[in-house]
Amino acid sequence: MKGPYQFQCDYIAGCAPQILQALVQTNLEEVPGYGEDRFCRTAAERIRKACGAEDAGVFFFAGGTICNLSIIAAVLRPWQGVLAAASGHIFAHETGAIEATGHKVLVIDSADGKVTARAVRKAVEDCRNNSARIFLVEPAMLYISNPTEFGTLYSLAELEELSAVCREYGLFFYVDGARLAYALAAGEAKLTDYARLTDAFCIGGTKCGALGCEALVITHKETAETFLSAQRQRGALLSKGRLAGVSFSVFFENGLYEQIGRRAVSQAMQLKEAFQKAGIPLYVDSPTNQQFVLLPEKAEEALLAALAELSA
Amino acid sequence: MKGPYQFQCDYIAGCAPQILQALVQTNLEEVPGYGEDRFCRTAAERIRKACGAEDAGVFFFAGGTICNLSIIAAVLRPWQGVLAAASGHIFAHETGAIEATGHKVLVIDSADGKVTARAVRKAVEDCRNNSARIFLVEPAMLYISNPTEFGTLYSLAELEELSAVCREYGLFFYVDGARLAYALAAGEAKLTDYARLTDAFCIGGTKCGALGCEALVITHKETAETFLSAQRQRGALLSKGRLAGVSFSVFFENGLYEQIGRRAVSQAMQLKEAFQKAGIPLYVDSPTNQQFVLLPEKAEEALLAALAELSA
Amino acid sequence: MKGPYQFQCDYIAGCAPQILQALVQTNLEEVPGYGEDRFCRTAAERIRKACGAEDAGVFFFAGGTICNLSIIAAVLRPWQGVLAAASGHIFAHETGAIEATGHKVLVIDSADGKVTARAVRKAVEDCRNNSARIFLVEPAMLYISNPTEFGTLYSLAELEELSAVCREYGLFFYVDGARLAYALAAGEAKLTDYARLTDAFCIGGTKCGALGCEALVITHKETAETFLSAQRQRGALLSKGRLAGVSFSVFFENGLYEQIGRRAVSQAMQLKEAFQKAGIPLYVDSPTNQQFVLLPEKAEEALLAALAELSA
Amino acid sequence: MKGPYQFQCDYIAGCAPQILQALVQTNLEEVPGYGEDRFCRTAAERIRKACGAEDAGVFFFAGGTICNLSIIAAVLRPWQGVLAAASGHIFAHETGAIEATGHKVLVIDSADGKVTARAVRKAVEDCRNNSARIFLVEPAMLYISNPTEFGTLYSLAELEELSAVCREYGLFFYVDGARLAYALAAGEAKLTDYARLTDAFCIGGTKCGALGCEALVITHKETAETFLSAQRQRGALLSKGRLAGVSFSVFFENGLYEQIGRRAVSQAMQLKEAFQKAGIPLYVDSPTNQQFVLLPEKAEEALLAALAELSA
Repeated sequence: MKGPYQFQCDYIAGCAPQILQALVQTNLEEVPGYGEDRFCRTAAERIRKACGAEDAGVFFFAGGTICNLSIIAAVLRPWQGVLAAASGHIFAHETGAIEATGHKVLVIDSADGKVTARAVRKAVEDCRNNSARIFLVEPAMLYISNPTEFGTLYSLAELEELSAVCREYGLFFYVDGARLAYALAAGEAKLTDYARLTDAFCIGGTKCGALGCEALVITHKETAETFLSAQRQRGALLSKGRLAGVSFSVFFENGLYEQIGRRAVSQAMQLKEAFQKAGIPLYVDSPTNQQFVLLPEKAEEALLAALAELSA
Repeated sequence: MKGPYQFQCDYIAGCAPQILQALVQTNLEEVPGYGEDRFCRTAAERIRKACGAEDAGVFFFAGGTICNLSIIAAVLRPWQGVLAAASGHIFAHETGAIEATGHKVLVIDSADGKVTARAVRKAVEDCRNNSARIFLVEPAMLYISNPTEFGTLYSLAELEELSAVCREYGLFFYVDGARLAYALAAGEAKLTDYARLTDAFCIGGTKCGALGCEALVITHKETAETFLSAQRQRGALLSKGRLAGVSFSVFFENGLYEQIGRRAVSQAMQLKEAFQKAGIPLYVDSPTNQQFVLLPEKAEEALLAALAELSA
Repeated sequence: MKGPYQFQCDYIAGCAPQILQALVQTNLEEVPGYGEDRFCRTAAERIRKACGAEDAGVFFFAGGTICNLSIIAAVLRPWQGVLAAASGHIFAHETGAIEATGHKVLVIDSADGKVTARAVRKAVEDCRNNSARIFLVEPAMLYISNPTEFGTLYSLAELEELSAVCREYGLFFYVDGARLAYALAAGEAKLTDYARLTDAFCIGGTKCGALGCEALVITHKETAETFLSAQRQRGALLSKGRLAGVSFSVFFENGLYEQIGRRAVSQAMQLKEAFQKAGIPLYVDSPTNQQFVLLPEKAEEALLAALAELSA
Repeated sequence: MKGPYQFQCDYIAGCAPQILQALVQTNLEEVPGYGEDRFCRTAAERIRKACGAEDAGVFFFAGGTICNLSIIAAVLRPWQGVLAAASGHIFAHETGAIEATGHKVLVIDSADGKVTARAVRKAVEDCRNNSARIFLVEPAMLYISNPTEFGTLYSLAELEELSAVCREYGLFFYVDGARLAYALAAGEAKLTDYARLTDAFCIGGTKCGALGCEALVITHKETAETFLSAQRQRGALLSKGRLAGVSFSVFFENGLYEQIGRRAVSQAMQLKEAFQKAGIPLYVDSPTNQQFVLLPEKAEEALLAALAELSA
């Protein structure tokens, strides 16, 4: 099928054909509900293996926001909050979902969507050294998204620094990887690094070629042990797990997940280069599939016209 | 594919082949996210038409519990609670999901999973006439499931009585139709009756042949107008709406939804008759696809053996 | 001042004159806020000593409901609930205050306002042995009031049994002692027993002769350490601690608290005997200052008339 | 009693002697609980009269934070938030109390603790005109404190502008008057102005000479009608209302409340002038009893020494 071509975001497409095919092939098989089916088990096994984390808990969700709010609310005590960039999805784009679970998102300094270990350290120290600290929400968790909402990427060294400062201060380190496929393609950090450096991270499916599912990997033992109840309470446990199970089984069978990421990043780089050659400035220099450019009005009109023609 | 046959519940199966086929056919089409795609629009239109409720809001969810908690938390004020049977899903099987949004589930008398208009009236009157009513949670909503968790069914007359008592007292009337297809097949009440008598009701997909989606129909105007934010806040808004949109478009194109319900109920009636002929007592007399029988241990063993043979 | 005499409850009176006197004497002294004043320190010291619990945390509140909701919300994780009798204050008379913090109150069997260790054990076992336990709220705390809402009392043996079953299952044991003075007067259990057997308990002031304050004793170390933030978050930390500090300093200087309890119980016993001699049946046999009798209409009229005369 | 003199804040003192005297005089009188006593009724009547708002609801609290969280949580729907300055008490000093009720505090621009009508307008317009507004918390309330946390004051004209913008956009306008006595003394706005311009405002007692109580005046009819349940649910309803009732009866009998404010402001002005004469720069130019100066270390030492001598 040809056009209309759309570029607004990475969830306008359907899903990887391999997933659909597997859904068709397994459709008549009867399996138990609530994630106890063989597809979810296989998916979890493959994810654990890819992460080099055989004891990790793996939990499936229908979307990113509910994954974020479930893990954050499960980890924090009532008087604790989560550190994030002002551009962080949980602060800027989730309609107060974290606050609705009773927790404050504590904004720290960031640049191009990225926070630094120094900013994390400062936030914790400022709170601990404040004589009025019982009036402050206690920072107990760090949230980052990778890639960020701007498409930028934390380097492996940056992730290691963030992990180190979190461990030094006893913060839970959570990475929202709604677009993790593109981070894996564009950056040095591998799944094993995420598993090694964080307490929990999300492997995005919806924005990486699935029909609507995410996998949450929890390496923090105590959290993983009680998480099923926490997930269930938020309405986040899938009664029919097979969609997520089949999707992630396929993603992680023959490297499909990474392959999708690489293809998208490679295509985005072609777009980026084209814009740069045409002298169109970038809003931010992003190495991933999210590209934001500062398009003059005329250029926008011309592009839209060309696109309409292509899609006709 | 042949067996193993399983009878534990109605979400062990995959999905209606027509839905899978439509997913395959539309997969390469690019559409906007967050329910603004043409599939969701078509599905909503067809649902509104089937309900005879052209102004109703239609919202899609990945599961029943998150649908329940989203609508209940959107309707109630903090000091208000929702009336339900002790066997009601929101009281008995959702890990305190309603309480996690700050609201108490107020249990009223029920028999075989069904509450009566009289019990609703009593609960409201008892609260209003109590001189200490400011110490009580105010009943402001009625939750029923139809079919109930026992498979029993409210008759049209009973639904009308419940609706009348709710309107008399200003209660919001919500019907959890996680298995509505079977209620439509086994009872007199039609979709137009649900739309006419309730303020909101859920049309179950997950337990009626979809891969994991529900449709919430809100006829209460004021609630419908602000519901999108409420849904988003609970992490319940699907960023990729096409799965639900395609599923419900197919369900409501040529009567597939009702057809699925009729087939399941008809088969359940054959099972029920077989048990009754064999002298096996029913736990409760259910006219729908949920059948609970009091099986002697020997009979259970024999059945399991026969099933194993069939599935081999 | 003479009458009108009132018998409806134990917070119709002002406060112990000794407390007022101490307030007058210390009024011009300037002290820090938020419980860091010398009155609160002295009160806490005296309470710790009376409880034989020198490491216990002592926290002051303006009322009982906010004390209950603060400690319960501080202890429970989101998916956990608190066991209580149906007549328990937190279930029956707090307008859903516990649910408003996100937690379900799990009702267990009780008689005359009292629960049994057996009922606690059954509730925990039923949950743990349930194959569907992830759909259930996990019992993690036991709430009792002593005296109960009916005026009845747990014996020391009963408290020991409840404590034992809580420790066996890892439940947090909390006693709401809004009327503890009367329990101390009428029963065998001493303050040292409450400190020894529970994880936290409340020493009621408002209903025992103070102007409006309660003391929460937390012997559970980890909970005590972070409780100030938890208390503050619920708006429960008194910015001017002196009222509570002075009140409890006076209560626990020369045994005033116990003395108030003994006087009230002794007077209540005179009333009880008078009713019994007159053949008026008791609603429940209460050994404390709460007496509920089943008064024939005529007797009620006669009593009200006599009271009006006395109060004239 | 002489010294030690303390200057850290306005809740280090006891209470106005007239209040203590009234407490002593009325102590033996028996009155009903939960604010239905004659003291609370008289206090409410006097407050209504002073505000020129005979239909206003008047509710008493033990402290400011619980008053703030109770009114904010009673007014907002789940997906709505409250606008405030970054220095606003609810954002900066309440340990996440507002978030704990499920709501986000939306920070808008401010200078010296004060927000502008323009900033309010911008926040609302930015949200309404945002195509992604369902991902944003909807601003539905404006919180200001007057005097602010810096001691600065909104002029009557500024309050009128804020009121106008709130009414234009349908925002609930709430003024935290924890130190309202000093605002009344130093500014033009009278109690009648607060009643006329806001939907609810708090008349601070704790920081203005009471032992620990606040009065919340609600002129917004619908909110006032259901507020008692909302207050009760947060544990904020005083079971023994007499302390607050007596305190506010005395405050508003012969102008004591305003008199206390005037005296404090007048004394603060002497301090301020003395600092200014001595060339000590002010942190901010405050017309009320809160004065923050930038004291050189040597000056601080000298002052502390002088103070110690005076207090000896």
